[in-house]
Amino acid sequence: MHIPLDRHSVIPLYLQIEETLRCAILDGSLKEGDKLPSTRMLAAELAVSRLTVENAYGELAAKGFLQARRGSGAYVCHPYAPPAPPAAEQTALFPVDPFTTGASRLDGQADSPLPPDVINFAAGVGNPRIFPQEAFRKVMHSVLRRHAEEAFHYGDYCGYYPLRDTLARILSLQGIPARPEQILITNGSQQALSLVSHTLLRPGDTVLVEEPTYAEALTLFELQGVRTVPIPCDADGLCVDALPALLAAHRPALIYTIPNFHNPTGRCLSEPRRRQLVKLAEAAGVTLLEDDFVGDLRYQGAALPSLRSLAAGGGVIYVGTFSKMLMPSIRIGYLVADAALYPRLAQRKHLDSFTTSSLLQRSLDAFVTVGSYQRQLQRACRLYRQLRDVAADALARHLPPGCRVELPEGGLFLWVQLPPDIPVSRLMPLAWQQNVTFARGACFYRNNPQAEFTLRLNFSAQTPERTVIGIERLARAMTLCRAQTAERATLINPE
Amino acid sequence: MHIPLDRHSVIPLYLQIEETLRCAILDGSLKEGDKLPSTRMLAAELAVSRLTVENAYGELAAKGFLQARRGSGAYVCHPYAPPAPPAAEQTALFPVDPFTTGASRLDGQADSPLPPDVINFAAGVGNPRIFPQEAFRKVMHSVLRRHAEEAFHYGDYCGYYPLRDTLARILSLQGIPARPEQILITNGSQQALSLVSHTLLRPGDTVLVEEPTYAEALTLFELQGVRTVPIPCDADGLCVDALPALLAAHRPALIYTIPNFHNPTGRCLSEPRRRQLVKLAEAAGVTLLEDDFVGDLRYQGAALPSLRSLAAGGGVIYVGTFSKMLMPSIRIGYLVADAALYPRLAQRKHLDSFTTSSLLQRSLDAFVTVGSYQRQLQRACRLYRQLRDVAADALARHLPPGCRVELPEGGLFLWVQLPPDIPVSRLMPLAWQQNVTFARGACFYRNNPQAEFTLRLNFSAQTPERTVIGIERLARAMTLCRAQTAERATLINPE
Ligand SMILES: Cc1ncc(COP(=O)(O)O)c(C=O)c1O
Ligand SMILES: Cc1ncc(COP(=O)(O)O)c(C=O)c1O
Repeated sequence: MHIPLDRHSVIPLYLQIEETLRCAILDGSLKEGDKLPSTRMLAAELAVSRLTVENAYGELAAKGFLQARRGSGAYVCHPYAPPAPPAAEQTALFPVDPFTTGASRLDGQADSPLPPDVINFAAGVGNPRIFPQEAFRKVMHSVLRRHAEEAFHYGDYCGYYPLRDTLARILSLQGIPARPEQILITNGSQQALSLVSHTLLRPGDTVLVEEPTYAEALTLFELQGVRTVPIPCDADGLCVDALPALLAAHRPALIYTIPNFHNPTGRCLSEPRRRQLVKLAEAAGVTLLEDDFVGDLRYQGAALPSLRSLAAGGGVIYVGTFSKMLMPSIRIGYLVADAALYPRLAQRKHLDSFTTSSLLQRSLDAFVTVGSYQRQLQRACRLYRQLRDVAADALARHLPPGCRVELPEGGLFLWVQLPPDIPVSRLMPLAWQQNVTFARGACFYRNNPQAEFTLRLNFSAQTPERTVIGIERLARAMTLCRAQTAERATLINPE
Repeated sequence: MHIPLDRHSVIPLYLQIEETLRCAILDGSLKEGDKLPSTRMLAAELAVSRLTVENAYGELAAKGFLQARRGSGAYVCHPYAPPAPPAAEQTALFPVDPFTTGASRLDGQADSPLPPDVINFAAGVGNPRIFPQEAFRKVMHSVLRRHAEEAFHYGDYCGYYPLRDTLARILSLQGIPARPEQILITNGSQQALSLVSHTLLRPGDTVLVEEPTYAEALTLFELQGVRTVPIPCDADGLCVDALPALLAAHRPALIYTIPNFHNPTGRCLSEPRRRQLVKLAEAAGVTLLEDDFVGDLRYQGAALPSLRSLAAGGGVIYVGTFSKMLMPSIRIGYLVADAALYPRLAQRKHLDSFTTSSLLQRSLDAFVTVGSYQRQLQRACRLYRQLRDVAADALARHLPPGCRVELPEGGLFLWVQLPPDIPVSRLMPLAWQQNVTFARGACFYRNNPQAEFTLRLNFSAQTPERTVIGIERLARAMTLCRAQTAERATLINPE
């Protein structure tokens, strides 16, 4: 079996090895009970240290894909029934997309199809079942009928003007003053983050980020050689009291924050903290990058003012997306920036990939303008609110004592804090065995022992019934994990 | 009038000023005969040097937008009837998209709509009238019917697997060995170039490029702080004989080349040179970036082997796109790379903007698979071949003596070399006055006096009738330009 290694990657070698082996297990090329090469042998073959291979095996074991039998070596485990064997041409020299997951920091299965038995709370998007397929098909159809010629052109580099105009109106209604000329349409908000990062930051610069935070933002900064420094957070969002010292010590070039229904914690930054944050950033002359990825998905409570609306001086770049509120593959996000930064961001957008598909932009604009977007949002909020409540209720009834769950006022995610006897790395394989999965907290931290006692649940993605069953399974895995811990303790300290 | 300046931009200040003023003239906010502020006043207002404003005015004058009256100042000229006045909300604090054109290096009108009187030979794309709107609408419709749920998902980060598989087959048929796992789908080939540039190059690195070459590649490299060093070119493409010295002197990290129907010259790199280029690059351990943006649009002669097919060692990254052969706004391009580079490129793609719209990818795959792409290509080749011949014939009949035109075997562009008495900067305003425009050679050069005597004509974009009329107009402008030169000469050296 060939294990490709990229020695220049920011992904550690042990994770690359882990990934390749896990894919091979998942696609059936490594089978239940297969013996893996010894760490010594594999290390020699790959020209890496033995520790690297040991770490890879450790990671696989943590996820439940490998069992070490004392004195005999490491054996493949299937945490669940393997999917159908892949077509012949897919068993290529290296597995299809091993990097997907390394890059995404998630556990390789977040957004990819899982066997139907597995209840997946790990995804980062809303419920595909309510994507407005029919309505969107209709607008697209009519755009193609009426504007095919223009819709197939490159179009305006900054984005389809009527769409920017529509967005400007919507944002202004929400108290975020924006003119179409300040709006840049991007290929999803990930591109907006990337444009900001590449335009404003150089290698060696520092960005202050919430801890935990959005995994792909962390990796984006790291890949560019930018240092990320964590801001401590609590239930009201990032602790602004910690900021003055951080600003003084690190002189950051940027503060990246997700003030609404944070990924992964679901928390909102409180209004007083918003005001203070803007004031501190302005005083320090630091640009704020406000990532509002699910801002419109609010199920209760009053909307909070955006940072951009609070900043008189225009030191805030606001980023939004239709991926979560509508559907991901439309790949339309946007940023709002002032004249001082906009031209540089627009130029970089242009050189990065030219325009965003004008066909999709025109369709989205038609969809928003005729009110379908508003209706879709209402549907989504109704459903997700129900799912949040179902999940919260099931969690309250089933989770073993000692777990802490916060109820978010909107968004997609529930954040669970685990007690010391349920470490997530031991919970994970047990959860897989119960046919349920989630996102490990570790994906969202740089390097913090706390991560071992946190996990993120996407409560929006299943039916209510499956949500309850999934949480029951999770609770069972937790109880098993706790029992294991107790058993170990007894082994170590027999009474 | 507010003129925004970005002092960090790679676009020189004088061009930013020129751009804003030109937009104001084009959108009617500055009118025929309006007097511009004196260079001294404007320089003071903008806090720039007077020379900067003088350069901006010079540039405007060169394009025919300004007339200097001795002792009285600078006055606005309209090279053609101004378009309808813009809607109120578009007269914003700064004009809509002034940067579009600065970034594109083109003359601000290349891909944007012009008044219908103007015959536009400046565009970079094929003929919108033959974009297969109806056929594409149909596949899209059926994809939305049958696969809406999956089509609206993020999908695979490296690209929709069946599309990669289809591409691998097509490329292999063309003698370019490729497996789906080596193909990365990108948001147009511009993103492929950008991914390669950001993955392989650091500021201060050197890239060897043809001179002239694709404008946006030059700007992309420059923006990243990468030095571009020109390779001299002739009718057979880049002069490989010059390479050993350039490789030794500059130790480049990359060679960027467009071997087929080059942009802007339309030339092909000859087969012996291809072999030699690959050999030299391999010997020097330099990666080749092969941009094959219109490779399939061949109207005569035998296909030449791609560089990637000639390189045994995999040191070539091959880049393709559907923008020119199909239509631009589908925004799908791709690159082919080996395992040594692929994971890093894929990771960067992921962090740059996640996936490329799976809806568009699935539609494209359906379009290609059912044979519609092949039919579209045949239609395009038939039409473009005819248009090329019409253009070549009209050029031969009408251009004044001393112009040199090369007949390309495919692609979109004709390259015209002008005699010394027809400098392009004086031809341009005369051409505007005749209601015809083209891309100035200067867009494709870094800094070379030769540029002043070259221009690019896109022969594919008009009807045959308009092509002939456009060339007649161009010829008239040339004759006028020549007469002007002669007149000046007489004024300076009266006989
Ligand atoms: C916090 C946050 N920001 C931005 C994004 C980027 O999403 P997209 O590029 O689809 O807009 C995501 C996606 O998961 C996210 O969670
Ligand atoms: C030589 C060349 N390469 C690449 C591109 C990028 O086009 P796209 O991103 O639409 O594939 C162009 C577009 O003009 C081009 O001329």
